[in-house]
Amino acid sequence: MVRTPKPIQSDIAWSTSDRITVRGKSLPDEILGHINLGDMAFLQLTGRMPTPQQSAVFNAVVITLVEHGITPSAIAARMTYAGAPESLQAAVAAGLCGLGTVFVGSMEGAARLLYEIMPEEADADLDAVARETVARYRAEKRILPGFGHPIHKPVDPRTPRLFAIAAENGMAGRYVDLIQRIHAEAERASGKPLTLNATGALGALCCEFGFPWRIVRGFGVMARAIGLVGHILEEAENPMAIEIWQRIEDEASSHMRPA
Amino acid sequence: MVRTPKPIQSDIAWSTSDRITVRGKSLPDEILGHINLGDMAFLQLTGRMPTPQQSAVFNAVVITLVEHGITPSAIAARMTYAGAPESLQAAVAAGLCGLGTVFVGSMEGAARLLYEIMPEEADADLDAVARETVARYRAEKRILPGFGHPIHKPVDPRTPRLFAIAAENGMAGRYVDLIQRIHAEAERASGKPLTLNATGALGALCCEFGFPWRIVRGFGVMARAIGLVGHILEEAENPMAIEIWQRIEDEASSHMRPA
Amino acid sequence: MVRTPKPIQSDIAWSTSDRITVRGKSLPDEILGHINLGDMAFLQLTGRMPTPQQSAVFNAVVITLVEHGITPSAIAARMTYAGAPESLQAAVAAGLCGLGTVFVGSMEGAARLLYEIMPEEADADLDAVARETVARYRAEKRILPGFGHPIHKPVDPRTPRLFAIAAENGMAGRYVDLIQRIHAEAERASGKPLTLNATGALGALCCEFGFPWRIVRGFGVMARAIGLVGHILEEAENPMAIEIWQRIEDEASSHMRPA
Amino acid sequence: MVRTPKPIQSDIAWSTSDRITVRGKSLPDEILGHINLGDMAFLQLTGRMPTPQQSAVFNAVVITLVEHGITPSAIAARMTYAGAPESLQAAVAAGLCGLGTVFVGSMEGAARLLYEIMPEEADADLDAVARETVARYRAEKRILPGFGHPIHKPVDPRTPRLFAIAAENGMAGRYVDLIQRIHAEAERASGKPLTLNATGALGALCCEFGFPWRIVRGFGVMARAIGLVGHILEEAENPMAIEIWQRIEDEASSHMRPA
Repeated sequence: MVRTPKPIQSDIAWSTSDRITVRGKSLPDEILGHINLGDMAFLQLTGRMPTPQQSAVFNAVVITLVEHGITPSAIAARMTYAGAPESLQAAVAAGLCGLGTVFVGSMEGAARLLYEIMPEEADADLDAVARETVARYRAEKRILPGFGHPIHKPVDPRTPRLFAIAAENGMAGRYVDLIQRIHAEAERASGKPLTLNATGALGALCCEFGFPWRIVRGFGVMARAIGLVGHILEEAENPMAIEIWQRIEDEASSHMRPA
Repeated sequence: MVRTPKPIQSDIAWSTSDRITVRGKSLPDEILGHINLGDMAFLQLTGRMPTPQQSAVFNAVVITLVEHGITPSAIAARMTYAGAPESLQAAVAAGLCGLGTVFVGSMEGAARLLYEIMPEEADADLDAVARETVARYRAEKRILPGFGHPIHKPVDPRTPRLFAIAAENGMAGRYVDLIQRIHAEAERASGKPLTLNATGALGALCCEFGFPWRIVRGFGVMARAIGLVGHILEEAENPMAIEIWQRIEDEASSHMRPA
Repeated sequence: MVRTPKPIQSDIAWSTSDRITVRGKSLPDEILGHINLGDMAFLQLTGRMPTPQQSAVFNAVVITLVEHGITPSAIAARMTYAGAPESLQAAVAAGLCGLGTVFVGSMEGAARLLYEIMPEEADADLDAVARETVARYRAEKRILPGFGHPIHKPVDPRTPRLFAIAAENGMAGRYVDLIQRIHAEAERASGKPLTLNATGALGALCCEFGFPWRIVRGFGVMARAIGLVGHILEEAENPMAIEIWQRIEDEASSHMRPA
Repeated sequence: MVRTPKPIQSDIAWSTSDRITVRGKSLPDEILGHINLGDMAFLQLTGRMPTPQQSAVFNAVVITLVEHGITPSAIAARMTYAGAPESLQAAVAAGLCGLGTVFVGSMEGAARLLYEIMPEEADADLDAVARETVARYRAEKRILPGFGHPIHKPVDPRTPRLFAIAAENGMAGRYVDLIQRIHAEAERASGKPLTLNATGALGALCCEFGFPWRIVRGFGVMARAIGLVGHILEEAENPMAIEIWQRIEDEASSHMRPA
């Protein structure tokens, strides 16, 4: 069987002896010293330089995802570092592997829901959309993605701040509007306060940018990579992994061991 | 055996119902909307806000490491995504796993060398240090870490730009000075042009910050996580992994197969 | 908020100074020297020693999944090893990350389908089940999981061998019967030969064991870990990763570079 | 720059429409149903079928490495599974990432040491070698790799069993002899009992096979992949990850939070 090879192409970067170009910009002349790391991420993902307003909101979105304390992901990274301190990169990789549907599910889910229910018409009745959506989720006994929080009650302190940054930069558009209407309607329908959490706010902002909902996970991954390097450095100086291990190992098998 | 548990402590972040604090700063009030992603990385790693000068240089250092075209790391990530498109985070993790001694070795090595040979005295003769170092590496037939490049000859275009950004921000200090003297001496001793590559420049800048040489790998890891998300998004839209696989698989076993 | 800790328990293994017990068996006295690695995997997963018949079939199932040539997973592992040869474990990990829905999807899918359509009654008409299933998939224009193969046409040579091993060991039961009836019906309905591939056969055998369909992925993961160690050893002695990289990198960006 | 491509070759496996060959053996006809999983691993790594004696010892070596209770590696895998239960393969990968110098260091180290100190002459005085080695390590205050254990004192129950299996199969040769002489000499020199642990015994057996010391890590990786699948299945049915996380998170930041 003779196969005709297909061309292999990438539009991200190219180099010659004296030039390095990323997304059409000269890395030395147009990128280094001109933009910040969040802008570089925006450029790498979209192929475009962010406007100042996009820069402000995008940096805030990714920064929100950098650090969440001692998460399962941080514990996995620290455990890995304890076994392979010579492979810092593998410890970060281990921590990232767990950023799946449980961790980033509600952020992805909020973005996906907003895209699905947003009417095409500019003058659509968003209150009606919110009512229908809340009624449907209540009827199906499903949890609205982006709502509820075990600790941050009744307000997730990140949510109003993210919306304020979006408003200051002219990016609090229809998706932010719609999730806030859903929030109001959900509280009205249940008669109880309900937290609109950071994952809901972030999902709405991703929609304002027009990012596909599947990309949302990537923002969490790049942000958490930064956070995990910080955890590994702390682990190197002030370790907790071995202590966690010893406590858990001892307890876990104690019910089986002969006295 | 009764074991006394040791305390488990982290100094990175804490939360209560209405507060989220990272490195002593309120995430909503002092971080979001106030700093960029590079500054957030600096804060996460050091516990301190960067000065404007540190911010400019640190952002440039990490940005330099984001994107390098179709590297082995990018190929690994794309191959992984082709098999598990539902696990974007695992594809990034797979790409990061290869950022080991070969990839980041010369950057780590340059930082380590500069720390080892830098004299404590402020008025030391750095030319003498450079001469001794070059002579020692030549005698041992070892390659100076941070020097040489297969493509960027005789100048790596990132190197002068990084040094210029450092100089503009008052951070082109003794380590930058020393690696430039080593560069001059190495060219003088061999009688041939030799590239001072970006990993050498980055290693010197990490020393200017005072970062331990072992941290350098972490900068590459966090930067490349951003770059890999970009590669995976391109792979999702314009795949190359399957085509690479089919070309290689066919060729790899052709010498064994019966005609 | 005061939380009552829940107990942490594992039923897999325990140790004291002179004893190591895995799944209720003494590792030194009842396991080492008494069973083979496939049996150990069976014991680790199920908590039971396999019968000789189960041992024969289970070893064959896992062995089938060890090696498939230069797959995307093997390429990812080799690329990772090229960058971090000091971290062999990270190279295996990178290769495993891609064993997702694309690679193991059809095996999981075959097992899941067979469980879903198998009638509870022992004397059910399996031909009727096969007809309904094939008709449904054809009406929905969906591909039957476990069928079709780009190379192995019209017969995947592993499939009859796996069924023969199952039959010799009294394990070719209702699920093997049902998938074979689906095979016959699918060929009859389309009027064309259709390969019942190894993933279909393996899915049916997993059902004969009663393994949950979600476990099937784990068999692929443990088997491929063995295979990847072999690939990395070959890469260490006779590398291909750098050559692949150089070919691809050059081609990938050539359309962007100035002449 | 025009580059001449080098050939890309693998000697592991090839397929045609009706044949699948691994390491020169027909997978359906010569492997499936004929050998066990440990033999398959031996074949994949060495290109040769093991003798019955090699099969017995090699299976025991790998089985010894499958399961060690709730290790840091198992905790990392369980944490990852808690965040991404749809990506079982990524959870195994995360667990494997930590099998580095700390975990497999002493096994690699024992094999490496034995290779380095073993005299070429068949009639060399191994007692003298043992004396010199123990004296050197004592003088340098270094720990002999493969000796000592926090729990298994004064005897690691795996060690005599592994040596007995080797002896029964004619594979307790010079390396097993030498490490036992080192053991006796180390106890004599210190005047205290010292455990010859399983990693020492396994290192010696790897030398008996003639495996390069760098391969030893691969045995741990393939064995532990099996073990980790078992842990993830237990985690799916009887989870501990979230409980560990909640205990640790709460404690870790309690010293920072306002009362």
